[in-house]
Amino acid sequence: MRTLRVELGERSYPIYIGSGIMDSIGELSRKHGISVKSPQLIVTDDKVAPYYLAQVEQALTAEGYSVVTHTVPSGESSKSLQVYEEVMTTAIRGKLDRSSAVFALGGGVVGDLAGFVAATYMRGVTFVQIPTTILAHDSSVGGKVAVNHPLAKNMIGAFHQPAMVLYDVDTLKSLPPREVSSGLAEMVKHGLILDRDFAYWCRDHAEELLGLVPETLIYGLERGCAIKADVVSKDEREGGLRAILNLGHTIGHAIEAVGGYGRFLHGEAIAIGMAGSAMLAGMLGRDQSLYAETVGMLQALNLPVTLPADIMVEDIMDAMQHDKKFAEGRMVFIVPEAIGSVSIVKDVPVDAVRTVVEQLKGEVNT
Amino acid sequence: MRTLRVELGERSYPIYIGSGIMDSIGELSRKHGISVKSPQLIVTDDKVAPYYLAQVEQALTAEGYSVVTHTVPSGESSKSLQVYEEVMTTAIRGKLDRSSAVFALGGGVVGDLAGFVAATYMRGVTFVQIPTTILAHDSSVGGKVAVNHPLAKNMIGAFHQPAMVLYDVDTLKSLPPREVSSGLAEMVKHGLILDRDFAYWCRDHAEELLGLVPETLIYGLERGCAIKADVVSKDEREGGLRAILNLGHTIGHAIEAVGGYGRFLHGEAIAIGMAGSAMLAGMLGRDQSLYAETVGMLQALNLPVTLPADIMVEDIMDAMQHDKKFAEGRMVFIVPEAIGSVSIVKDVPVDAVRTVVEQLKGEVNT
Ligand SMILES: NC(=O)c1ccc[n+]([C@@H]2O[C@H](COP(=O)([O-])OP(=O)(O)OC[C@H]3O[C@@H](n4cnc5c(N)ncnc54)[C@H](O)[C@@H]3O)[C@@H](O)[C@H]2O)c1
Ligand SMILES: NC(=O)c1ccc[n+]([C@@H]2O[C@H](COP(=O)([O-])OP(=O)(O)OC[C@H]3O[C@@H](n4cnc5c(N)ncnc54)[C@H](O)[C@@H]3O)[C@@H](O)[C@H]2O)c1
Ligand SMILES: [Zn+2]
Ligand SMILES: [Zn+2]
Repeated sequence: MRTLRVELGERSYPIYIGSGIMDSIGELSRKHGISVKSPQLIVTDDKVAPYYLAQVEQALTAEGYSVVTHTVPSGESSKSLQVYEEVMTTAIRGKLDRSSAVFALGGGVVGDLAGFVAATYMRGVTFVQIPTTILAHDSSVGGKVAVNHPLAKNMIGAFHQPAMVLYDVDTLKSLPPREVSSGLAEMVKHGLILDRDFAYWCRDHAEELLGLVPETLIYGLERGCAIKADVVSKDEREGGLRAILNLGHTIGHAIEAVGGYGRFLHGEAIAIGMAGSAMLAGMLGRDQSLYAETVGMLQALNLPVTLPADIMVEDIMDAMQHDKKFAEGRMVFIVPEAIGSVSIVKDVPVDAVRTVVEQLKGEVNT
Repeated sequence: MRTLRVELGERSYPIYIGSGIMDSIGELSRKHGISVKSPQLIVTDDKVAPYYLAQVEQALTAEGYSVVTHTVPSGESSKSLQVYEEVMTTAIRGKLDRSSAVFALGGGVVGDLAGFVAATYMRGVTFVQIPTTILAHDSSVGGKVAVNHPLAKNMIGAFHQPAMVLYDVDTLKSLPPREVSSGLAEMVKHGLILDRDFAYWCRDHAEELLGLVPETLIYGLERGCAIKADVVSKDEREGGLRAILNLGHTIGHAIEAVGGYGRFLHGEAIAIGMAGSAMLAGMLGRDQSLYAETVGMLQALNLPVTLPADIMVEDIMDAMQHDKKFAEGRMVFIVPEAIGSVSIVKDVPVDAVRTVVEQLKGEVNT
């Protein structure tokens, strides 16, 4: 079991990563001072529950904890205020008190939802994450928790750091292949923004990553988490630097929205977005080879790098406008400078972005 | 205009108190760095809006702010997740961004609701309080914001300190007399827990307070806020000391619940609770004169000190059990030691509390 510390002053916390470590959740909870006198809540979803819920429950009860559980439907639609209220109801009926903890067992959806419950139940209780997707290596660092509003994603939320994260890579074995690739998109993104060697490592170990080889996954997740943790330590509340984590996300969020949240997985959408950002870099006069290199990495991880023909360029442009990164024909964009380095460009011409989106619909041209 | 500073490190903020100061809200917002480039949201209720909304809107727009408003129905029922979502909708449609502020114009209900919106809109934006009730001198210090869950009050919330509070005592002129007394209950409570002189001052100036004489009110509100601020500075997240602010609240909350939230105002319920706490002090062998002194102060402020005959003792006891302050026949209680001083007693026999509740139904016996 490896331990990575996210440094955030008095809100610092460890991420435990390993294979076959799920059973230690009870022991670790004791070690972290979670009271056995208070009831604990596990939130999970109905795809994850059949595989891992009993195991987590048992590991906790074996250490003397009493546990209530709440299982939500799998998928983004559970990140709603309605489901949030239902989880709150379970917490109240389960008599959770201020010394209780909320455990998120699942991917980013369960993490964001349960985290927002933890942030706001009785004005905040302890939060523990047990990520079961690769993508959740991203959401388990940084303390961002949220639910969606019908008008906009992640609009309602808080910053609430977990007390610890337990990442057992064995849980990833049941993950559908598309979800694996989607999660790897965020992993390679962490390389692309800050660590050239790690970006190439992801490409060169693509087969083992896609094949879920434990040692390879553990290294990749640890390095991905560490890079994000480093950024978050320097800018916990997203005042500036943290924006670089959004490489590929401006276009990516628009793609997700136009696809009605469901057609594209988050990692797929941002993969196309990262290809777009690299293309934009070339148009802005930066290294022309960035695009081909980026596309090569993404394709090695089985990720898409083009937009399907039926997606309308103007729909993407409109959806980006929603993201409020526009002002007077210019927009803010995270643009690669080289593999492993990006900058925040505040005055990218909207027309250049439109050209990029148009070209994303064409053939891959490297 | 007087300024009181609530000391909370980097979350410190000023409370401006005065008569006829509402028009300076725009100027003060500029001074506090609230951006004129971002839209601002005023949340108020339908009893307060006709009196003061236009004035606040105008004071903000005069300084160059663009403003959206959301008016909720008056009363506790607006502290719900449903109304919260509606306010969120207004915020999103109004294109509020991370540099926007949410202004709460109203009493504790609007303050708690708008504060929870501010705490969670885009993971937290600036919060400004413009209290219009006496009771809100309490809620404007301490950063507790919340909405109710159908199963329990204030169950869903956060700690979110305002950037500033503007308290114009002129707004109190339109307050119904029962609401005036209700607010004065929290004011005298601040004296009862920590400031003997202030408690007697409240009694001796009851007539001017009830008559809303500006200078008297300004002094009383300032002192009340200062006492609470002092406690909160020492225990922002309610780890220990802050509990003393709950004098009268264990019984008081039960009375509110049994009365179905509506029959008793909050201050009325805690006035009866404070009379009960003083009675309990006597039963626990403390100064026997505390009860008579306390009752005298509360009655001077037109507050009730007994329970109506139709309220069932066991209903009050059950409602307290809900409050989870029970354990094995004992409960935690804030008990007066003298006027101006209290202690947290962890092992009050439940039977003693039952006797107190029974006696609260009798005649005032001093
Ligand atoms: N808070 C953050 O910083 C942050 C960062 C990135 C993404 N997110 C959020 O995360 C969400 C996406 O995360 P995600 O991709 O993990 O989504 P997810 O939680 O929906 O999981 C993806 C799918 O895999 C299933 N699943 C999860 N674990 C499984 C397992 N071990 N075996 C089999 N099936 C499993 C889920 O039921 C779901 O159907 C989005 O809502 C996004 O906004 C948050
Ligand atoms: N956050 C905290 O620390 C804290 C502390 C104490 C109480 N509270 C909360 O505050 C709420 C009670 O506060 P409240 O007593 O101010 O209630 P309130 O906001 O409901 O106001 C009382 C009534 O007076 C009306 N009103 C308000 N200002 C007026 C004015 N100037 N003129 C005419 N009418 C006016 C309101 O419409 C309402 O009908 C409760 O929900 C309680 O939980 C919070
Ligand atoms: Zn992402
Ligand atoms: Zn109170």
